[in-house]
Amino acid sequence: MSLLVVGTVAFDALETPFGKTDKIIGGAATYISLAASYLLPEIRLVSVVGDDFPDETIQMLRERGVDTSGLQVKSGQKTFFWSGRYHLDMNTRDTVETQLNVLADFDPVLPDHFKDSKYLMLGNLMPSVQQRVLEQMNERPRLIVLDTMNYWMEHHWDDLMENLKNVDVLTINDSEARQLSGEYSLVKAASKILQMGPKYLIIKKGEHGALLFGEGHIFIAPALPLEEVFDPTGAGDTFAGGFISYLARTDDVSFENMKRAIIHASAMASFCVEKFGTQRLEELTLDELAHRHRLFRALTHYEMDFSTLKQLI
Amino acid sequence: MSLLVVGTVAFDALETPFGKTDKIIGGAATYISLAASYLLPEIRLVSVVGDDFPDETIQMLRERGVDTSGLQVKSGQKTFFWSGRYHLDMNTRDTVETQLNVLADFDPVLPDHFKDSKYLMLGNLMPSVQQRVLEQMNERPRLIVLDTMNYWMEHHWDDLMENLKNVDVLTINDSEARQLSGEYSLVKAASKILQMGPKYLIIKKGEHGALLFGEGHIFIAPALPLEEVFDPTGAGDTFAGGFISYLARTDDVSFENMKRAIIHASAMASFCVEKFGTQRLEELTLDELAHRHRLFRALTHYEMDFSTLKQLI
Repeated sequence: MSLLVVGTVAFDALETPFGKTDKIIGGAATYISLAASYLLPEIRLVSVVGDDFPDETIQMLRERGVDTSGLQVKSGQKTFFWSGRYHLDMNTRDTVETQLNVLADFDPVLPDHFKDSKYLMLGNLMPSVQQRVLEQMNERPRLIVLDTMNYWMEHHWDDLMENLKNVDVLTINDSEARQLSGEYSLVKAASKILQMGPKYLIIKKGEHGALLFGEGHIFIAPALPLEEVFDPTGAGDTFAGGFISYLARTDDVSFENMKRAIIHASAMASFCVEKFGTQRLEELTLDELAHRHRLFRALTHYEMDFSTLKQLI
Repeated sequence: MSLLVVGTVAFDALETPFGKTDKIIGGAATYISLAASYLLPEIRLVSVVGDDFPDETIQMLRERGVDTSGLQVKSGQKTFFWSGRYHLDMNTRDTVETQLNVLADFDPVLPDHFKDSKYLMLGNLMPSVQQRVLEQMNERPRLIVLDTMNYWMEHHWDDLMENLKNVDVLTINDSEARQLSGEYSLVKAASKILQMGPKYLIIKKGEHGALLFGEGHIFIAPALPLEEVFDPTGAGDTFAGGFISYLARTDDVSFENMKRAIIHASAMASFCVEKFGTQRLEELTLDELAHRHRLFRALTHYEMDFSTLKQLI
């Protein structure tokens, strides 16, 4: 099924306890599209870059099935740039510098053949920009997943609340869930957030895995325990891309299938953090991916015979 | 199978964001024994209290199958007392006061009929005291589980290292695993700690669940997401009691059975934190316990058809 991805395509400069990079390719939509490209033959991308953005990267995305006809290239302007420094725990980071550049007045324009997309991933962007995409769709997509962050909660609350009424799944991290709800307990936070509009909520907890809330149920996906988290940049976007592409590929938005989608999302994210930037996501083999699915299975799978249990207790 | 439990029986005074208590019953061995009493008809307890300790509590333990013939009651002396204050995250706490009292010169003495115990739980105590218990056993138990804490790593390193060589399973929390190994990554930490002696390592992460390492495998048990963690005191001990009692009840120390034991341990711990002190552990019904096992199952269980997956990717 058709997937439309909206979000940033950008340059990042990163510093982690393991090293630092010069400007490398980043951006939410880049990670989402790359992750999705392992399950879908075609991904529709809406984003914006400056004319400093390398043609080879755009070419690489095209070769992976990304339709870049919705990618605006602004001549004489520069691409969005973010640089950050990670703390030792790799779950927290400081922004060193943000240059909005082309993002400052980004007005997403959907090519006509994007407007019937059945699955829509609204990557982290200013809420009013996410809204502009929704307005251009011919009809409501079968499933809309929205990612956002603390900055929009602090500065664009009303627009964000408006968006939440229109989406199916919200993906945020644990501190954002606490901020959005004003509740410390994630169970209470989820309950409040689900009243804001989304039918499902995914709370990402980095190395502690992810929680899916919806239909009165909770599902917990583990993160793969790794010897080293080399660079967590893009892990959340990779997760989102893995999640929505699994649902689009199977065209099944039941809670049961969302569980599998979250495991696939976690598997994709576990690759992302193994190297700097998008590197690992560009070189994955399908055997590696299938093997990692088996690793995830083994992490939480146990046999429990409930009739035997009754006799034990 | 016979279970011997060694650890503190104590008074606690607690302060959490939800309230505070006067002196209430606490102690590692108390929580371990109570948790174990749901699976085992008899638990052998070795500990020490002063004559200020209430007879009714000792009577309550006996009624639950705890053999208290190894519980020394020191006349004219006072019971070990600890008071602490929890932070909002409930994963960290400050010690307000510690009165060692009878614990200062505790010399554990095993009644003869305890010396053939097949399962041994060495609750958190000074490593040399744990060692004294091991020395008195007629033969090595089938399984020895040891709990410890940061204080002993800082002040009794050599004794602790000696103990680690003699036990099968070590249970510690994530910050203790990092301290013990000098590694931030829990995978690297586990690898180093398993070289110190234990065949299995359980890393407890509070609301983020628990990890079991051993035989080259990792298993992750979730924690039950709760609306409120009322009081985390004793959750780790309850977990340990749930874990070893499941293994003793089934008399199966395979990695597969340890997975089930950790789920049972997590279920028991999820009850413990619902009320202050040992209250919830004293009033559990078997139906509640069976129901919680089903909740845990639903938290992580998903169906994945690997042949279908191969077609998707």
